[in-house]
Amino acid sequence: MLLYVLDLFGVAVFAASGALAGIASRLDLLGIIVLASITAIGGGTLRDVLLNRHPIFWMHDSGPIWTILAATAATLLWVQVLPVPTDALLIADAIGLAVFAISGAQVAEKAGCRPMVTVLMGTLTGSGGGVLRDVLSAKVPLILRQDIYATAAIAGIAVYLLARAAKVSTAWAFAAGAVTVAGTRLAAIAYDLKLPVFSAVS
Amino acid sequence: MLLYVLDLFGVAVFAASGALAGIASRLDLLGIIVLASITAIGGGTLRDVLLNRHPIFWMHDSGPIWTILAATAATLLWVQVLPVPTDALLIADAIGLAVFAISGAQVAEKAGCRPMVTVLMGTLTGSGGGVLRDVLSAKVPLILRQDIYATAAIAGIAVYLLARAAKVSTAWAFAAGAVTVAGTRLAAIAYDLKLPVFSAVS
Amino acid sequence: MLLYVLDLFGVAVFAASGALAGIASRLDLLGIIVLASITAIGGGTLRDVLLNRHPIFWMHDSGPIWTILAATAATLLWVQVLPVPTDALLIADAIGLAVFAISGAQVAEKAGCRPMVTVLMGTLTGSGGGVLRDVLSAKVPLILRQDIYATAAIAGIAVYLLARAAKVSTAWAFAAGAVTVAGTRLAAIAYDLKLPVFSAVS
Repeated sequence: MLLYVLDLFGVAVFAASGALAGIASRLDLLGIIVLASITAIGGGTLRDVLLNRHPIFWMHDSGPIWTILAATAATLLWVQVLPVPTDALLIADAIGLAVFAISGAQVAEKAGCRPMVTVLMGTLTGSGGGVLRDVLSAKVPLILRQDIYATAAIAGIAVYLLARAAKVSTAWAFAAGAVTVAGTRLAAIAYDLKLPVFSAVS
Repeated sequence: MLLYVLDLFGVAVFAASGALAGIASRLDLLGIIVLASITAIGGGTLRDVLLNRHPIFWMHDSGPIWTILAATAATLLWVQVLPVPTDALLIADAIGLAVFAISGAQVAEKAGCRPMVTVLMGTLTGSGGGVLRDVLSAKVPLILRQDIYATAAIAGIAVYLLARAAKVSTAWAFAAGAVTVAGTRLAAIAYDLKLPVFSAVS
Repeated sequence: MLLYVLDLFGVAVFAASGALAGIASRLDLLGIIVLASITAIGGGTLRDVLLNRHPIFWMHDSGPIWTILAATAATLLWVQVLPVPTDALLIADAIGLAVFAISGAQVAEKAGCRPMVTVLMGTLTGSGGGVLRDVLSAKVPLILRQDIYATAAIAGIAVYLLARAAKVSTAWAFAAGAVTVAGTRLAAIAYDLKLPVFSAVS
């Protein structure tokens, strides 16, 4: 139950980030809703298609779609009167990433995937929606260019899998993994940590 | 049978729109065929993958692929000698959108989807190909930015579902839905209707 | 066995091409790995999803993922000290295209696809990863604009299917198809062959 609420929190945060991207790209109302939806459920949809899990998670549960609509409406109202709370959104986004990455890894684990595929599926669940958002906005996806993002997801999923291998209960393993993701991500923002960039000799 | 012919008409119209986008982007012959194909069958393919309908609709029926090749050839010949009939294409595109949206909704309905998912699947079938066309042309998808397009699909699918709920026969419900889509879309073009665009306070 | 080795060779070559694109786009380390992976296994993944083949090929075999990591590491080390061997990469890429296109066609053939769908699936396997690489780099996909690329794949798959129809053994048909793909592609590079581009009258 707590997990489900956390999951919808992740959906709401990612929907808001998609809606803000849509406003910045001067999309119309429906375009904003579409971009919010794809950002919020795109990663989990790719995961379900790749793992052959049908029906896709938002098809048999209305929760995600209503959450997206509510979050988008709230975002549109907010920006009419108040400035975008950039810092709060970054923190909320880190929590959303943490929840999505570890719950995506759990889904892959239950489907019997090997650890490396489980890491990939969790990372995809956490960051796939943001990649689709940027592709639809005709931008090079931010998470491919930017500071520690998918990296934080990978680190947290590794912690989750190690905890599970050490017979830690699912709930505690989840907590350890999610805290690692969010902590790594927030530390990267606070201290401006980046992965190395490479140049070719000419 | 009439529905099948209408469906191929939709395929032909969307293929022509993809081919024209390919010509505008200076693609070569094969690139034009690829873009025409993705525009024409991309939306239905996404729908079938998400609904786990296999084989995908164009795999067991040759009609769509031959229609795409014929429509692309006709488009390439046409533009050698005559200007692009922009107005005729807009009208044809509205009809194609109408047919695809309602037939996509029917597919989802038969697969047992809830009404909200049915609306999403119909809209995806109608507008997914155009979104893929724009992504492959490295543009922000037109339908996210522009006048009433997916909105027309949503309105028509709602009419279709309401008619079905009121025990109207499938054929008449289809007609009512499709006329609503095409009518809304053409009215939006004629009177330059747009959905609201939002700005953030700075 | 030889085929498996050739397949991993294709994975390595495409991963290197994705890694180079990532370096050119100034992506960070993880972004480079992601782009290398999508270029290397994107086409085969799309093929498996469309044909409903589960688990996806890289989920039950670790070979492709380790190959991608090794090829990406080698590429990153190489560019620190030596210029990019453009000509060698073009030749390697032609071989990778040949292997992927014909092995993709074999997969579709075994799944019972009609010849035209088999051609599409082989072409998708060979060129889909490169298209995804370009979309994620926010470029119009190279193979849609450029010299004979997917065209070479189509020609080779046609040769493969004709050889199979003439009761040639699988191994020889594979060889004939793959040589046709690589030969056509290399001839196109060497003699600067292009497909026609079209202009609309204004």
